[in-house]
Amino acid sequence: MQIGMLVFPDITATDYVAPADLLVRMPGAQLQLVWKHTDPIATELGWEFRATRRMDDCGQLDMLVVPGGPGLGRLLDDEEVLRFLARQAAGAQWIVGICTGPLLLGAAGLLKGYAATCHWASHALLELVGAKPVDQRVVVDRNRVTGAGVTSGIDCALRVIALAGGDAVAQGVQLFAEYDPQPPFDSGSPHKAPAAIVAAMRAKMQPIVQARGAILRKRLG
Amino acid sequence: MQIGMLVFPDITATDYVAPADLLVRMPGAQLQLVWKHTDPIATELGWEFRATRRMDDCGQLDMLVVPGGPGLGRLLDDEEVLRFLARQAAGAQWIVGICTGPLLLGAAGLLKGYAATCHWASHALLELVGAKPVDQRVVVDRNRVTGAGVTSGIDCALRVIALAGGDAVAQGVQLFAEYDPQPPFDSGSPHKAPAAIVAAMRAKMQPIVQARGAILRKRLG
Repeated sequence: MQIGMLVFPDITATDYVAPADLLVRMPGAQLQLVWKHTDPIATELGWEFRATRRMDDCGQLDMLVVPGGPGLGRLLDDEEVLRFLARQAAGAQWIVGICTGPLLLGAAGLLKGYAATCHWASHALLELVGAKPVDQRVVVDRNRVTGAGVTSGIDCALRVIALAGGDAVAQGVQLFAEYDPQPPFDSGSPHKAPAAIVAAMRAKMQPIVQARGAILRKRLG
Repeated sequence: MQIGMLVFPDITATDYVAPADLLVRMPGAQLQLVWKHTDPIATELGWEFRATRRMDDCGQLDMLVVPGGPGLGRLLDDEEVLRFLARQAAGAQWIVGICTGPLLLGAAGLLKGYAATCHWASHALLELVGAKPVDQRVVVDRNRVTGAGVTSGIDCALRVIALAGGDAVAQGVQLFAEYDPQPPFDSGSPHKAPAAIVAAMRAKMQPIVQARGAILRKRLG
């Protein structure tokens, strides 16, 4: 099972690290962090890292995973990235998007007619790419698996491992990662968090969401 | 709030990335990834990254965080690391250990008489460092906050943010990260996973746990 995780400048670190760290523990899985080059790049918080494989040196993947982050907006009209995703998706067994990653899959034409989810703040943009927005943490529609914001990558990865490797493998990985969540608050979704906190976070994220919407409308509208 | 996250070769990526990615979103927080040098090092899965600050160039931290991973065993008798932790802990407001990180805090003498937890497979080793082992996902004892395995770093970080920055800040960070967990299975702890899966995972992790125990016994026994 060859897994390719797209990485890019200004990625949200947890978006790619948490699912990658779980997916790669499937027996037989090999995982590459894929980008245009393997020179140092930095996460949105400035942490330097490197992709392990260049896009143009990446054989056919069995699983394509696209995480999100502030840097995702710049990729929504990046023809090189969009072509890479479309080419890989044509032969991949599983196509996975996490956080705002599903928007990029959509920009590459890969979610047309598929039920999908993404980070709550960008969820309304799913319609722009022809997806059927579903308000769930993880959505599986045929071979497309999409996850909501940031930490949903954990639930999403476990679901994908179960689909690709069986329930027992996923349960073993969950045990290793001691994923027995006990959040100290129940404010992990806009339906549950206090209204004032939702409003403040929505306002804070508004500019980046609007910018993504503008790119998608220009490209696909 | 100056936060220092210890990083090291063969660290488990999620152990440091997930809590760092949350803690740094506290207003006023600055976070450094701290190691002996800032040359490239690699996680247990071979992903190259760099610390952002050298230990010997690190001013007094307000919060010291120690994550875990396979490489942690080699630090349990590393005098340079142990001295760094003891020195920082003397002036830090918060001392946090995640996954197997609490064992290293313990080796540095920082958990003597404190209630603490760590990854379930290494939990029995907490007694060797004089801690009072508690079978909980997150344990707070005075200014020591410890978390269980890997993904507990998320719950642990949110708890720490609430302690250091207030509940509303933690709720906002939780909302941003959409931490509304819905694991597809209930097998995230040895009390919940199927017995055969627990036994297999315990057997797989036994050598590394025994090696850590041997170092701690030799050092502290």
